[in-house]
Amino acid sequence: MFENKERTDINELGEFGLIKHLTTNFKIKNDYSVKGVGDDAAVLDAKGKQTLISTDLLLEGIHFDLAYVPLMHLGYKAVQVNLSDIYAMNGKASQITVSLGLSSKFPLEAVEEIYKGIELACNKYNIDLIGGDTSSSKQGLVISITSIGYADADKVVYRNGAQEHDLLCVSGDLGGAYLGLQILEREKLIYLENPQIQPDLEGKDYIIERQLKPEARMDIVALLDEMNIKPTAMIDVSDGLASEILHLAEQSDKGMTIYEEKIPLDPMTYETARELGIDPTVCALSGGEDYELLFTISQEDYKKLKHDVDITVIGHVTDKNSGCKMVSKSNNVHELKAQGWNAFNK
Amino acid sequence: MFENKERTDINELGEFGLIKHLTTNFKIKNDYSVKGVGDDAAVLDAKGKQTLISTDLLLEGIHFDLAYVPLMHLGYKAVQVNLSDIYAMNGKASQITVSLGLSSKFPLEAVEEIYKGIELACNKYNIDLIGGDTSSSKQGLVISITSIGYADADKVVYRNGAQEHDLLCVSGDLGGAYLGLQILEREKLIYLENPQIQPDLEGKDYIIERQLKPEARMDIVALLDEMNIKPTAMIDVSDGLASEILHLAEQSDKGMTIYEEKIPLDPMTYETARELGIDPTVCALSGGEDYELLFTISQEDYKKLKHDVDITVIGHVTDKNSGCKMVSKSNNVHELKAQGWNAFNK
Repeated sequence: MFENKERTDINELGEFGLIKHLTTNFKIKNDYSVKGVGDDAAVLDAKGKQTLISTDLLLEGIHFDLAYVPLMHLGYKAVQVNLSDIYAMNGKASQITVSLGLSSKFPLEAVEEIYKGIELACNKYNIDLIGGDTSSSKQGLVISITSIGYADADKVVYRNGAQEHDLLCVSGDLGGAYLGLQILEREKLIYLENPQIQPDLEGKDYIIERQLKPEARMDIVALLDEMNIKPTAMIDVSDGLASEILHLAEQSDKGMTIYEEKIPLDPMTYETARELGIDPTVCALSGGEDYELLFTISQEDYKKLKHDVDITVIGHVTDKNSGCKMVSKSNNVHELKAQGWNAFNK
Repeated sequence: MFENKERTDINELGEFGLIKHLTTNFKIKNDYSVKGVGDDAAVLDAKGKQTLISTDLLLEGIHFDLAYVPLMHLGYKAVQVNLSDIYAMNGKASQITVSLGLSSKFPLEAVEEIYKGIELACNKYNIDLIGGDTSSSKQGLVISITSIGYADADKVVYRNGAQEHDLLCVSGDLGGAYLGLQILEREKLIYLENPQIQPDLEGKDYIIERQLKPEARMDIVALLDEMNIKPTAMIDVSDGLASEILHLAEQSDKGMTIYEEKIPLDPMTYETARELGIDPTVCALSGGEDYELLFTISQEDYKKLKHDVDITVIGHVTDKNSGCKMVSKSNNVHELKAQGWNAFNK
C-alpha cells in the first residue's frame, strides 16, 4: 500500500499533533455534545433522556483484510457497525469516540483516509466525534469505536420484550454482505496467483457495497416512530439471522418460527449464491454483517407497516417449548442453529 | 506463561459464552446504570447531570510488557488509567466498557486474571461494567476501555479555566511510576541473561506499586468537594508534569511558573533516581504514569487546603507571555518542555 503515494511519517506530528490534525474538520453538530475532543473527557448532556452506549473492537486480520478493504470504507463501516447497535435499541445515535492503533507501515495519508470515511459517516448520520485515543501498534491496525445515543426511557427497546403471537420482522434484505465477502475473497486469491489480472467485480456492485459500505438503519427507527410502532424486542443482524433470532428468543424466554419463503433476498444475492454453489437461505441465516434490524411487533401494529416494502414479516413468536424453527419452502421444519460468524473461529 | 497451569481453550466457550462467563460476577451497583451487559447497547440515566466520557487503548508491546506485568495488575491498571480522566474533570466515575482482543496464546485462565483485576477496581471505585466486545487477535493483547462519569453542569472542570495568579497544585507525589518501570526493566534484562536469578525488588515496593497498580485520585475529587473548592482548571498526570502543565497553560491561554523545590517526591523515588543516576526532578517532569491530579485554584481557596499533606502547591499561573518556567533549587529559570512519554516514539 501507498508505495507510490506521498508518505508523511506520523512521528513528525506526535500523538497530540496527530489527533489535532485528524479531528480539526469535525465540528460539533448535536446539542447533546457539550464538549468534544480536547480535554480529559468529553462532556455530554442527555437532556432528560436515557443514554445508550455500545462499543466494538475491529482488528486487522480478524475483522478486515486490508488487501481488499479500502481504508476510507473501513472508517465508514467501523462507524456503521457501532451506530447499528444504538438503532437496535430504538435510539438516536449522537456521538462516537474513535481509538486507533497504527502500525509503522501507516503513513499519515493512510490515517487520513480512515478519518475521511469516519467523517463521511458522521456527516451523513449527524454524529459528533467527541474523543478517542491514538497509539502506535506493533501489531497491525486496531480500531475501537464507542457509540453514544439517546432515547426517552419509555422508547428504549430491549431484546427481551417479545410476546407470544407477536410478528417477527426484518428490514431490507439479507445475505448480501456475506456474498460480497466471498466475491472479494475469490478475487484476492486470483490476484495473489496472478497480479496482472484485474479483479472482476462486474455486476456485483450491490453485494460488494453491502460488505464494504453497510448502512446502519437509522431510517427504520425513524420510520417506526412515524408509524407510531414501538417494537416489543429488537436486535441488529450482525452475526446472521439465525443467531439473532436465538438471542431474541432466549432473552424473551419465547420460541420463534420463521418461513424460508419470507426471508428477503436481493436478486443479486440469490444469483451469486447459486453461482458459487451456496444455498441463498444459508447466506441469510448464517452469513452476517447485514446490519439490518430484526424486531417483533404486536399483531395490532401489522396494519401500520404491511404496505412498507422495506420491512418484511418473516415469522412469529411462539411459546418457549416450541423452540426456534424454520419452515422450509418444501414445508419441512428445521431447528434454527447459530452457525453465524464467530470471532473466535477465524 | 501458564505452561504449568490449567489451560482452557477460549474457543470452547465461543464469544457470547466467554462474555457471559467473565461478566457473571459483576453486579450493577449504580442507579446511573439502567441496563448493563447483554443487549445491543447499555442503557444509562444521567439523572440531570452531565455525562463525562473518556477512552484509552492499551496495546501489548507499546503500553505494557507481559514479561513483568501480572495480568491481574494489568486489568486493574487499565481501569485506573481511564477513571483518572473522569476524576480530572471533577466528576464521579460510574461505568466502564471493556473490549479485549486476545491472541491464541491466552487460555481462559489468563483472561480470568485480567477480569479479576478489573473486578477489583470496579468494586473499590464503585464502577459498573456495562458492556464491551471480545475478539480473537492475531496481534497480541489489545485492551480498550471507555469510562463514563457524571457531574453537575456547574461542577465540571475543564483544562482551560486557569486564571492569572491562581495557584498550581498537585496531589500525591511524582516520578515514582517511572522509576518503578526502570527497576522492572532492569530486572527483566537480568532475568533474560540469566533465568536462574530471581528479581531483586527489595525495598522498591512503593515505586513498583506506583507503576503496576496506580490508584486514580477519586479521593482528591471528594476532598476538594468537602473543602468546597472548585479548581479553575484540572488535568491528570499521565505523561509527566511538564507535559500536563503545558496543556493547562496552552488551553487556558496563560503562562505557568513552578518551583523545583516544591515538586513532591517520595524518599524512595528520590533515592532510586540517585541510585540509577537519573535526576529525580526529571523523573517527575517527564516520567509520567503517576495519575495524580494537577489543578489550579484561586488564591482565596489556599487557606482551605494549606494544611492538607496530600496536596502540594508547586507554582502559580502567570500571563501568557511569561511562558512555562521552572525555577530550580539553585534559582535558575528553565523553560518547561514536553519530553514526556509519547506513544509514537516507543
